[in-house]
Amino acid sequence: MSDQLQGEIDLQEFRQMGYQLVDWIADYLGHPEQYPVLSRSQPGDIKAQLPPAAPEEAEPLAAIIADFEKIIVPGITHWNHPNFFAYFSITGSVPGILAEMLIAALNVNGMLWRTSPAATELEEVTLDWLRQLLGLPADLRGVIMDGASMSSMVAVAAAREAVAGLDVRRQGLAGRTDTPRLRAYISDQTHSSVEKGAIVLGIGQENVVKIPSDDQFRMIPAALETAVLHDLAAGYRPFFVCATIGTTSTTSIDPVPAIADLAEKYGLWLHVDGAYGGMAAIVPEMRHVLDGVARADSLVTNPHKWLFTPMDLSAFYTRHPDVLKRAFSLLPEYLRNTETDANAVIDYMDYGVQLGRRFRSLKLWFVLRAYGREGLVARLREHMRLAQQLAEWIDAAPDFERLAPTPFSTVCFRAHPRGLDDPDQLNKLNEQLMTAVNATGEIFLSHTKLNGAYTLRLAIGNIRTEEAHVKRAWELLQEMV
Amino acid sequence: MSDQLQGEIDLQEFRQMGYQLVDWIADYLGHPEQYPVLSRSQPGDIKAQLPPAAPEEAEPLAAIIADFEKIIVPGITHWNHPNFFAYFSITGSVPGILAEMLIAALNVNGMLWRTSPAATELEEVTLDWLRQLLGLPADLRGVIMDGASMSSMVAVAAAREAVAGLDVRRQGLAGRTDTPRLRAYISDQTHSSVEKGAIVLGIGQENVVKIPSDDQFRMIPAALETAVLHDLAAGYRPFFVCATIGTTSTTSIDPVPAIADLAEKYGLWLHVDGAYGGMAAIVPEMRHVLDGVARADSLVTNPHKWLFTPMDLSAFYTRHPDVLKRAFSLLPEYLRNTETDANAVIDYMDYGVQLGRRFRSLKLWFVLRAYGREGLVARLREHMRLAQQLAEWIDAAPDFERLAPTPFSTVCFRAHPRGLDDPDQLNKLNEQLMTAVNATGEIFLSHTKLNGAYTLRLAIGNIRTEEAHVKRAWELLQEMV
Repeated sequence: MSDQLQGEIDLQEFRQMGYQLVDWIADYLGHPEQYPVLSRSQPGDIKAQLPPAAPEEAEPLAAIIADFEKIIVPGITHWNHPNFFAYFSITGSVPGILAEMLIAALNVNGMLWRTSPAATELEEVTLDWLRQLLGLPADLRGVIMDGASMSSMVAVAAAREAVAGLDVRRQGLAGRTDTPRLRAYISDQTHSSVEKGAIVLGIGQENVVKIPSDDQFRMIPAALETAVLHDLAAGYRPFFVCATIGTTSTTSIDPVPAIADLAEKYGLWLHVDGAYGGMAAIVPEMRHVLDGVARADSLVTNPHKWLFTPMDLSAFYTRHPDVLKRAFSLLPEYLRNTETDANAVIDYMDYGVQLGRRFRSLKLWFVLRAYGREGLVARLREHMRLAQQLAEWIDAAPDFERLAPTPFSTVCFRAHPRGLDDPDQLNKLNEQLMTAVNATGEIFLSHTKLNGAYTLRLAIGNIRTEEAHVKRAWELLQEMV
Repeated sequence: MSDQLQGEIDLQEFRQMGYQLVDWIADYLGHPEQYPVLSRSQPGDIKAQLPPAAPEEAEPLAAIIADFEKIIVPGITHWNHPNFFAYFSITGSVPGILAEMLIAALNVNGMLWRTSPAATELEEVTLDWLRQLLGLPADLRGVIMDGASMSSMVAVAAAREAVAGLDVRRQGLAGRTDTPRLRAYISDQTHSSVEKGAIVLGIGQENVVKIPSDDQFRMIPAALETAVLHDLAAGYRPFFVCATIGTTSTTSIDPVPAIADLAEKYGLWLHVDGAYGGMAAIVPEMRHVLDGVARADSLVTNPHKWLFTPMDLSAFYTRHPDVLKRAFSLLPEYLRNTETDANAVIDYMDYGVQLGRRFRSLKLWFVLRAYGREGLVARLREHMRLAQQLAEWIDAAPDFERLAPTPFSTVCFRAHPRGLDDPDQLNKLNEQLMTAVNATGEIFLSHTKLNGAYTLRLAIGNIRTEEAHVKRAWELLQEMV
């Protein structure tokens, strides 16, 4: 029983509570409609129900689980709900949940090959499986990051490391008169994490140049070249460009081949952010979205976004693992070991910021096997079909309009009642519409702004989202406008 | 069944496999001795058993779980084993495993308050509970990071942000003639992650000054002051110092009060790395290890290290959350929302690199409640008692010697047979001894080097480690020397 003061909690109690949670999760996944998708908590509601200090004595697991249901669940916004259409919709899938049970039980730190050979080798294997599913060339080496923010930052760090003669690792950047003023290029649609990465790395926000995008929100290569030439003339050192396959606002696709031409011409590290949209390439008729990516220096795509893998698991690929290792490797004596010394293994700690590494590849392995290639393809294809379906409904509706193309499974649109053309009033109307539909608890949407227009985004990505869910969302939007 | 190509796997199959895994985990935790602690895999063994590509068709969950047992488990080094004494010993505890099931099922991204109010508010509450358990002042604000590597880097980034007039966020560091050459100070015992953080942030390895430590491996404050004065005279800008409570090699405790005096005198950001040893302060008679920490600018301590919480969960505290926010906050339009605009809530994405954030606080909540304060205190106290016991055995043995004090639960020692005094031979003997005991599969130790001496480390930290386990380790070492 849990009143003991030594050792672990009784395993019989674990078994009982484990079964109970398996049942709770099955009910949760089976009946999501019992919860409002967007939590109805007000700021402070949850805190007010929790004691000001940790308990003095052990509490039974059953009491904690009861409080979880009573206090915590009402404060959850249900990301794992088929009517979660906000941001990018994700999935904590059945095989992913099962794998997470084992990950926690084994509690492996895969920092070195030696500290769990299976963690390292399964990471190599699953990332190579994923590479093949995406149709990417064999010279790309994968490493699992926690999320795309880290992948972006690592990409910028690798690019910085690759700048000839800089020696940033040893000498740093500060107080040196001999360092070039580095310039990174993104588009005005690029995810904020690339900018954040550049800030962290000491590049500086004003050295992250935002290239304008065209009327379909794609980076304009000619504008990139103009910016690079302008910066070169002004004495800057262009070193990095990020192209995106599936931008966050509209899921637009930057013209990677043209950007790759310029990256090669001017010696920029080309990073491709396919965190969301890159995954579509596992669908054969969508493989073209990765055109040109074989020429990129690095790529990120997130199984925890649109491949049914629970948070967090981001797949980072590069053709230059040696550059990553040069940027990040540090081997203190207390981590030296025979296999590392013999250069016989990969130690993944050498390829990123973090030393501690969860056994994340296990959940990717479970997911890839439990659905199989054809199951993954069919599900992603269906999500895109549903988005096309919604796009058609919107296009056919007199009082709604799409505000961007729909290349993947996310639809950007707004209500636009006939005769209402004042931009501010339209923005207000759509903000109110979003607030109203979200307040129903039936669906959860988010927004962006496109050329000043308040834009609703409906993102499809949960494994249990079916046509009926999308249809109901569309009905609600029409009813409440 | 799992051959369907749409929607989620049948929930009856999930229930069945979930129960099966609960049973597997209970057996695993109950009978760890069935496995060698250190995996016997040779490089390539696991890979050789895995197919070269993902399966075309879905596979039954039962088949994947069977392969997990057959292929993966032999490649696991068992971190969750009571005889795991290497590095720092950790625990994937019963309440932690149960919480991870729910974390995966909810699959919440707590980037904003709105994206799950409970995730944000439970993070505030549990980190405040932990702060109180540690006896730390109320002006410290907590934020969960994935691990201490990230916490260290964030600390250096906050310190850099706090340097007056630098404007690193906007302008960066490169190519500017007006930036001071920043200097960070650590000891020769500080964890490598601080150095790595400085490299990533563009400070440069040669600007991370390693202050010598005394005969008990504690940073020498006078040497710190000498280094700072030397650097000031040479035109550098000292900005950061890291003191450690429980260094990685020997678990030594830097003199924080004296270092805090110098940090205040010279305007350095004082970061305290208590990733392992800081947690001891929940034990009343050990609270003194955090003396002076109330004056620190930031502190890290890891519940995933010595507080029975599964990987990964690092608790970062600072008296200057505003500086963190200045360093890291970026709010794109697609993440704007009512509560954030009203400044009514914390959005934890503002306080670090990562945008995506797992619902980690849930497992800390489960752990703190399931053991209670007195249960946690008793378990940490027992680990320290066991270490003292081993230290006494070693001190009484004619052919062994301790090589460092034992302030926590980690013992540094070596075999030193009478008459054998050649340093190289002693090193060779101890390396062979470690290899031999690790090869038994009964226990797993790691090593360090102290003043050139190959040193064995036996770290106690798993919740199921009892005196019998430590005794057996000691017997093995005596037998095999």
